[in-house]
Amino acid sequence: MSEAERLLRQKIEEIAAPDAAQMDAARRRQARLAKPPGSLGRLEALSIQLAGITGRLHNSTENKVLLVFCADNGVTEEGVASAPPSVTRAQTENLARGKTGAAVIARRLGCALRVCNVGVRDEVREVAVIDRVVLRGTANIARGPAMRREDALRALAVGMELAEETARGGADVVGVGEMGIGNTTTASAVLAALTGAPVADVTGRGGGITDEAFFHKRAVIETALRVNAPDPLDVTDVLARVGGLDIAAMCGAFLGAARARIPAVIDGFISAVAALCAVRLCPAARAYLIPSHASFEIGSRVVMDALGLVPLFDLGMRLGEGSGCPIAMAMLDAACAVLNDMATFDEAEIDDGYLAPIRRTDAFTVRRDT
Amino acid sequence: MSEAERLLRQKIEEIAAPDAAQMDAARRRQARLAKPPGSLGRLEALSIQLAGITGRLHNSTENKVLLVFCADNGVTEEGVASAPPSVTRAQTENLARGKTGAAVIARRLGCALRVCNVGVRDEVREVAVIDRVVLRGTANIARGPAMRREDALRALAVGMELAEETARGGADVVGVGEMGIGNTTTASAVLAALTGAPVADVTGRGGGITDEAFFHKRAVIETALRVNAPDPLDVTDVLARVGGLDIAAMCGAFLGAARARIPAVIDGFISAVAALCAVRLCPAARAYLIPSHASFEIGSRVVMDALGLVPLFDLGMRLGEGSGCPIAMAMLDAACAVLNDMATFDEAEIDDGYLAPIRRTDAFTVRRDT
Repeated sequence: MSEAERLLRQKIEEIAAPDAAQMDAARRRQARLAKPPGSLGRLEALSIQLAGITGRLHNSTENKVLLVFCADNGVTEEGVASAPPSVTRAQTENLARGKTGAAVIARRLGCALRVCNVGVRDEVREVAVIDRVVLRGTANIARGPAMRREDALRALAVGMELAEETARGGADVVGVGEMGIGNTTTASAVLAALTGAPVADVTGRGGGITDEAFFHKRAVIETALRVNAPDPLDVTDVLARVGGLDIAAMCGAFLGAARARIPAVIDGFISAVAALCAVRLCPAARAYLIPSHASFEIGSRVVMDALGLVPLFDLGMRLGEGSGCPIAMAMLDAACAVLNDMATFDEAEIDDGYLAPIRRTDAFTVRRDT
Repeated sequence: MSEAERLLRQKIEEIAAPDAAQMDAARRRQARLAKPPGSLGRLEALSIQLAGITGRLHNSTENKVLLVFCADNGVTEEGVASAPPSVTRAQTENLARGKTGAAVIARRLGCALRVCNVGVRDEVREVAVIDRVVLRGTANIARGPAMRREDALRALAVGMELAEETARGGADVVGVGEMGIGNTTTASAVLAALTGAPVADVTGRGGGITDEAFFHKRAVIETALRVNAPDPLDVTDVLARVGGLDIAAMCGAFLGAARARIPAVIDGFISAVAALCAVRLCPAARAYLIPSHASFEIGSRVVMDALGLVPLFDLGMRLGEGSGCPIAMAMLDAACAVLNDMATFDEAEIDDGYLAPIRRTDAFTVRRDT
């Protein structure tokens, strides 16, 4: 086993289960808050999950950071994408300049942005982009492996380190997004390899392609799986053979967030596939994941089912870049506010007014101001 | 026709259709933004809707206000609610003191709160509550009408005036919520009356009641509809006979927002029933409505279908108070940021890289920095 492999395994072993005692404390506090039990639905569940993640009853998600990993994918040679690979470079720069969809949404919703170049083919000329290039783009998975195993391990380490560094810098929560022309193709290939799902069930139109290109895309993924024969039980092998540097780094970022005990928000399809890779490498990492939206991509349902997660909202989005994460973070803010700031029944001067199912109102009393 | 009735009709006639030219301009701008066409889904649709509402291409929803209308419902005499009516007074005060679920969520998400007492039975001892009491609670709809037609008209006017005053005060968007023990019963009765839907299809457990109380609640609503025989084509009659002061004021608030040309965010089941009343009074008001969440209440689906709206998210919430509105407003913020701040293809230095479905990448060029 290589040194990089050993280091990854060691770090994964350090990922702890969520704090069950604090989750219980959060559940008990939710039950004392002045509202019908369960009436805040998933906001209550999120507040309990956060307590487990951080090991603290009271949490804040004020310091938000969106991590966007950018890389090119050699499979674009096959004509599977709606845009040329040169767009990866342009949009990586535009992200860091605050001009893309995810960048403007993040800024408006109070979420900082860290853009990381882990493998863009063309030269990135924007100093605000964090340079952690492993390779300048992967090889074409329709002809052979995307990269060597050691490259995948390096990309995993890049993502893990960036997430941990961001947590050390004070982030309460990270979102994990991507920019990489061709990466719905690689994400579908990884998902099919990991789950055994038919390619047709996990392959969508990405940025938007014609029927002809869509059927071709499916054929390319079938070819990639046949040519590379990735081992479904070896996530690193799957990432190296049919994945990409962006997906590998994102997988690392989910693991890094779990290791740092902060929640990590999944964006859309590609982000969810990376999260599934993280959970297959380390089942304990699942407790640290927060879903955001139901992506328009068809494979989104397959990967969310494999993760056992239900998206928090559905806006028919399919942009990527982490564009859904800041909205989910607003929901986390709401969940924190509920647990931290709502009055309990005592504080609300209500004697268990909502606590038990009743028939007759005179069974209850409400304390008056003295 | 009474003076109040004539005034209401006159105000309703002043509600304008959305600005089709600005909606077209927003659509054209969305098409020029550097993203795959349609990839931001409902965020794109929201930005187009906002342009129609305000008559301006570029919008902001920074100044957010949640309006919460509080009132008691005489039908609680029948034992239909999970809490005694005295809780309405306590939670009205707690709302204004920033201690309830909606209050803490609104504060955390940057949404101001205006709490309006339109008919609380007990004396409200909190000066921050806006006092617009029409009646101190309605009568029991299982025995006769909730209120006189003129009271319903007054409550409608209270809501309309508060929304318009809030818009004049600088609000870019309002949310419309309620606090009133027993108001899922009146909302279900109003919805059944307006749509003809079977009571069983529109009646849920509200704050949470036993099976026995639940069947009793349905029987009470059946009785209320039989005893009062509201005219389904006369919304004011329905509100006066089987509705409540909270629902009538909320209906007025939706109309007031439309008249002031600002968007109005629907909360859960009761808010949606009030919105349906507004649309039945004035079909043009529909264009000003923004849904938020899919309430856990069973009737939520019926009323959203009747409105022809699809909720933006589903967190299994059923608290009311307007608790879902601030989250939808974050989505509006995101929609504004997309239309206002994203780079166009020209600005992004991408020559229509995402515009057309392609097979071969060399059909496209990307401008380089000069």
